[in-house]
Formats: sequence, C-alpha cells, structure tokens
Amino acid sequence: MSVTPLFSAARNAMDRAYAPYSRFPVGAALKTETGAIHAGCNIENASFPEGWCAETSALSHLVMAGGGKVKEIAVVAEKMPRIMPCGGCRQRLSEFVADDAVLHLCDLDGVVETVPFSAVFPLGFTFEDGK
Amino acid sequence: MSVTPLFSAARNAMDRAYAPYSRFPVGAALKTETGAIHAGCNIENASFPEGWCAETSALSHLVMAGGGKVKEIAVVAEKMPRIMPCGGCRQRLSEFVADDAVLHLCDLDGVVETVPFSAVFPLGFTFEDGK
Amino acid sequence: MSVTPLFSAARNAMDRAYAPYSRFPVGAALKTETGAIHAGCNIENASFPEGWCAETSALSHLVMAGGGKVKEIAVVAEKMPRIMPCGGCRQRLSEFVADDAVLHLCDLDGVVETVPFSAVFPLGFTFEDGK
Amino acid sequence: MSVTPLFSAARNAMDRAYAPYSRFPVGAALKTETGAIHAGCNIENASFPEGWCAETSALSHLVMAGGGKVKEIAVVAEKMPRIMPCGGCRQRLSEFVADDAVLHLCDLDGVVETVPFSAVFPLGFTFEDGK
Repeated sequence: MSVTPLFSAARNAMDRAYAPYSRFPVGAALKTETGAIHAGCNIENASFPEGWCAETSALSHLVMAGGGKVKEIAVVAEKMPRIMPCGGCRQRLSEFVADDAVLHLCDLDGVVETVPFSAVFPLGFTFEDGK
Repeated sequence: MSVTPLFSAARNAMDRAYAPYSRFPVGAALKTETGAIHAGCNIENASFPEGWCAETSALSHLVMAGGGKVKEIAVVAEKMPRIMPCGGCRQRLSEFVADDAVLHLCDLDGVVETVPFSAVFPLGFTFEDGK
Repeated sequence: MSVTPLFSAARNAMDRAYAPYSRFPVGAALKTETGAIHAGCNIENASFPEGWCAETSALSHLVMAGGGKVKEIAVVAEKMPRIMPCGGCRQRLSEFVADDAVLHLCDLDGVVETVPFSAVFPLGFTFEDGK
Repeated sequence: MSVTPLFSAARNAMDRAYAPYSRFPVGAALKTETGAIHAGCNIENASFPEGWCAETSALSHLVMAGGGKVKEIAVVAEKMPRIMPCGGCRQRLSEFVADDAVLHLCDLDGVVETVPFSAVFPLGFTFEDGK
C-alpha cells in the first residue's frame, strides 16, 4: 500500500464527482513524462450515455494543459476496491499513453497493485489511416 | 461583434484541440454565476465515438473547479462560423445551465449572435426519478 | 390519444430493453418514407457512458435494413409520460430525418402529442465539410 | 483462413455502413449460444462522439431479437486487416459475452485468427452494485 501524490490527486478528484444517478463517485489522475499531474472525476447525465468517466475528465485537463505522454494512471472509487478503467477509458487513454505506462489499482487508502497499461488493453485499436 | 473574455477563453482553448481525425478544432468556454470562466477543447479518438467535444472538456473543468450554474456559453470552431453545440452537448450542458443561460455563437473574430440556451434545447430530457 | 402501428412497435420494443442500472425501459420506432418501421430499445452498460439509447438501437435497424429518410419518430418509456429524445438522440436522428419529420410524444397507452422534429432540434449541428 | 457464416454476416453488414466521415466501413457479427447470428455496421455522426460502432449495432439486433449469451464475435473492416474491437466495444460486448466467448479477427477474405475474448479484455469493469 502506498499513498502517492498521484493517488491523492485521484482521491481528491473523487470528491468532486457529479454522480447523482449511479451514486458511484470515481476519481482519476494522470502523471506525464514531465511529472505533471492532471486529475478528473466522473460527470453523469440524465441520459446515461451522455455522461463521461473520471479518466475522460482527467484527459481533458491534460490536453488543456498542453498535453504530454501519460506515464502513470491512478483510479479510485468510493465503492469499489481495485477499480479498473472501463473499456471506453482504456481506448481513450490509449491515445495518450507512453509505451511503458503503468496503471495503479487503488482502494480508498492508497495504491493496492500496479500493472502495465498494456496488460489491460492488449491489441489496442488504432486508426493511423484516419489521421 | 464583440470580443469578450469568454470568447477569448474559447478561442484560446480551440488552439489546444486534439483533432487529428476531423482536423476540426473547436473551443468552448462557460461562465458561471460567480463570473468564473472554464474552457475546453475537443479531444478525438481513433474510435470516433470514444472522443469528446469541447463543451465536455469545459464542463470537466467546471465540475473539477467546484461546479456552479452556467450562465453563458461560447463556442468557436476554426472552420465553421456560428458553430452550434451538437445535440449531445446540449444534453450535457442542460445538466448544469441556469434557467436564463445564453449561448454565444461565434466566428473566429468574436461573438456574432447571442441566443437563449433554452431556444436551442426546447423540451429538454431530464430524469429526476433517477436521482 | 391514438394507438398507431408505430406506437405499438415502440411499445413492444420497450419490453426488450436491457436497463438493469436505471430500471428505466425505453422503446423507440421510426417510420421511413416508404412506410417501413424500425424499432429499438435502450441497452445499458456497467460503464454508463458506454450504453446507448432506444433511438440508437432503432437507427441501427434502419441502417442495417438499407436506410431511408425518417418521417415519423415515436418514443415511449415505462416511467415517463411524453418522454423526449435526449439531446444525443436528437443529434443522431438529425443525420437521418426528412425535413418534415414529426416526433410523437407518447405515454404507455398511445400518442399524446405530435410535434415537428425541427421544433425540438432547432439550429442543428452538421459537418458537411467532414464528408 | 476460413469463410464462415458468421464472417459472411459481418462482411455483408460492412456493406451497410454509414461512414461518410471516416470512410472506414466496419461490419460485426455475433453468434449466440443457440446459434443465432446478429450483425451490424458502424453508423457515424456529424458530431463524431455521437456515432456508434458496428459491434453496438450488432448488439442492438441481439437484444431486440430477445438476447442470449454471445459465444463468437467476428469483426471486419474495409481498410484494416485483423481489425480489433475498440475499447468501448470490448466494454459493451463484455455485458453480453459467455465466459468462453471467442473473437475472430478477419481480413476481407475471412477469419485470420481466433482469440479468447477474455484475452482482449482482461480485468473487465463491471458494476454489480449498480443493478
């Protein structure tokens, strides 16, 4: 168990969650190659498909701050120890992660386990021709 | 035509857009009841449905900053004068707008026209029972 | 009040809904210029933003059946009389509606009111340059 | 290489794709425990995040046909041999797959490789408490 600045950023972001429909607050934080940390929370909507995840919010902050490759990801949720990013977030994160990015699985007290991001998103979908 | 701080925030956000697939950078900015301004850009994804709009990014900043009712919205795009929020963004914004919120339609030089938000999202969808 | 084949198709589709998270089943049906009817239900996901609306399912059936311009739309929900399509669905429908398309607002017994689609999605967002 | 009925269903669905923005037609087909096959194509939108993937369309057909556990998945794209489902589709499929479901990677001529679905979506996100 370790309480890192990245975990704390995710944990604090969780407290900002707008989750009146699921009552399932989530926080996420991203550390870039330069050491900058960007955090976000989930933001739900009356029309469930129009809401978005904590990782999406965190990426919004990353990009608005000038971008950079993501080296570390931490996600924490109030009701779910070792919460995993959903498949959609794995796809969104994949657009910005460094090859050696790691994902920290957390409970409310800190990091429980760390795995390579590539281990949770093998054979990722990309669309180089579309650029 | 008027160049307001809100327009400038949207215009600057547009320059942060990650839009390698559409090559259609968009910026959005929101002003709350307290006068705070939160901005965002569109962030695309190889899997198009997994990307998100400038208004979503701006709402991510609003909520992470502590929330507040949105009174004014400005959106600007590089290639489209008087760009309108898409229907999905109208839905997302509707969760946070004040009753008398206004939408500023912009070109690259400033605000071109201002309309009530309710005029572009009449008979909005809500889900009070879900809360 | 009127119980049309289009309403019945939406009502029957509602019974197929996969809505274990919101417990809010919705059905939608679309009639094309040729009189063909295509229906769909909402299909939710553990990650709320990755689910989709009844109108999306109905459009999936429309397109797979060969497409065609949508002239009439009916939506019905178990717990919400006169349910409106969410903003995201207005955006998705706008890609396929005829200029004079109408939207039937329903309760569980039939059509309650009919409005022009353009009245609920004024100043729609399009992206002709992207085609 | 093998040309199965499931591949053919995905291949035919691809020809229905509405992909004017990416010009990247995709088809998907699902086989359930009873042997039923349900197919779908990608359906794009002027607002990219509001479009949806071929797998989503196929799941719409599955659920509207009465549901059932998915045992086999095939995906094919015009411009991408061995196309993978995006992360969002992995999330959506995970709600309906059997534990031993397999994913067929295809090119335009048939199935190229078959992998367990669990191999492309390890440590999936679920939300049992939300039901």
